[in-house]
Amino acid sequence: MTKQERATRTRQALIRSAAVVFEQHGYAQARLVLISAGAGVSTGALHFHFENKAAVAEAVVAEASRELRDLSAAIRHRTDTALQALVDSSHALVGRLREDPVSRAGFRLSCDGERAAAPDLRMEWHQRVRELLDEAAAAGTLADGISREDAAAATVAVTAGFEMLGRHDPEWLSPYRLTGFWQLLLPRLASAETFPRVDPSGTGAAPPTRGPALAGLVIGETESPADVTAGATAAAAEAT
Amino acid sequence: MTKQERATRTRQALIRSAAVVFEQHGYAQARLVLISAGAGVSTGALHFHFENKAAVAEAVVAEASRELRDLSAAIRHRTDTALQALVDSSHALVGRLREDPVSRAGFRLSCDGERAAAPDLRMEWHQRVRELLDEAAAAGTLADGISREDAAAATVAVTAGFEMLGRHDPEWLSPYRLTGFWQLLLPRLASAETFPRVDPSGTGAAPPTRGPALAGLVIGETESPADVTAGATAAAAEAT
Repeated sequence: MTKQERATRTRQALIRSAAVVFEQHGYAQARLVLISAGAGVSTGALHFHFENKAAVAEAVVAEASRELRDLSAAIRHRTDTALQALVDSSHALVGRLREDPVSRAGFRLSCDGERAAAPDLRMEWHQRVRELLDEAAAAGTLADGISREDAAAATVAVTAGFEMLGRHDPEWLSPYRLTGFWQLLLPRLASAETFPRVDPSGTGAAPPTRGPALAGLVIGETESPADVTAGATAAAAEAT
Repeated sequence: MTKQERATRTRQALIRSAAVVFEQHGYAQARLVLISAGAGVSTGALHFHFENKAAVAEAVVAEASRELRDLSAAIRHRTDTALQALVDSSHALVGRLREDPVSRAGFRLSCDGERAAAPDLRMEWHQRVRELLDEAAAAGTLADGISREDAAAATVAVTAGFEMLGRHDPEWLSPYRLTGFWQLLLPRLASAETFPRVDPSGTGAAPPTRGPALAGLVIGETESPADVTAGATAAAAEAT
């Protein structure tokens, strides 16, 4: 592994650890020593990559934003209709919120009043939903008389609601909840010819794993925040 | 005004001031001196009514819960169908989130991870939505083959999404956003005979003002958090 590769890995491990710590403690209470310990590096290594906590938070949001954009682009490439791409993108988003601390923390940091960090992930998602509905309308696959603005707003509000409700009860982030929403909405949204071709549960067109940038990280996919804290405590004890 | 009436007024003024302060500073950072000053009373008067900050927060949530229950009961009383009562109740909820700091703060305190306070307003709202959909099904006004569970989840998620998105952009709490959602969903939800009788923009069956318990408060309906802070600062200066 080259020095450059190692630096990239450390940076990504720090982003992931920061996401877990932000989620557990909130941005205001998150301590840099916990973030560096969670990534298995010193605070010196953290400061090599990030000037301060705000810079780490911005990197978390940027990573979540990149991931969401990449996922949606890959999905559009693999799906037949723009409406199916919309359904699949929403499933991919909810899936990331369910499984990926970086996406969860990115959304909270981006728009939750904890701090304002560009880019605003919910606005980016709204924009993407609008693009796909415009594409569906141009292709004639949208039902007549449907307001694209209302459809976009409902989609964005439902996913934002699932995100918020899912913080306290993960069942809100189950695939079947979102499938239920699309089962209600798709018969209104899709034209008669398109409707039978759109699967409300998604086609699984989303790439199943994270991109290579985050593969093989120090921190495992399933590590709990408690483990990170324990690790950080141990590391802090060693440092004294 | 009797002593009892004055005590009730002070308590309500404290609840309202607390809601404004919680909204502006967050629960953790909210100071009791700001809350009492915002209500135009001493911290001693605050402690006469509430043991500590947690007790004030619980009173805010309880007040928001009472208001929402009263509104929905009054609406059901005045509407023709359970589906119209559902639409009207959702408009009343979003209206309270738009205009009433107690409702806004109640929802944030109740379910936002800032602190856990019973009752959980979103669960209460979910319960109410389910009841109205069950009633609609029993009366035969629901379309065939509609999953009540999915319809309830979509309604609760959309209103939760509007609430969260509305924190940063109040347009999400505009009546037309919710009307747009019901315009999309009602043709799926209502039976063919019922659909023309349900107004997606609401019938205005909700009582327009707060109940007598909160009438004639010290703090005006439109007072901004900045005013409360200024008042509190002045009060704190006087106290020294």
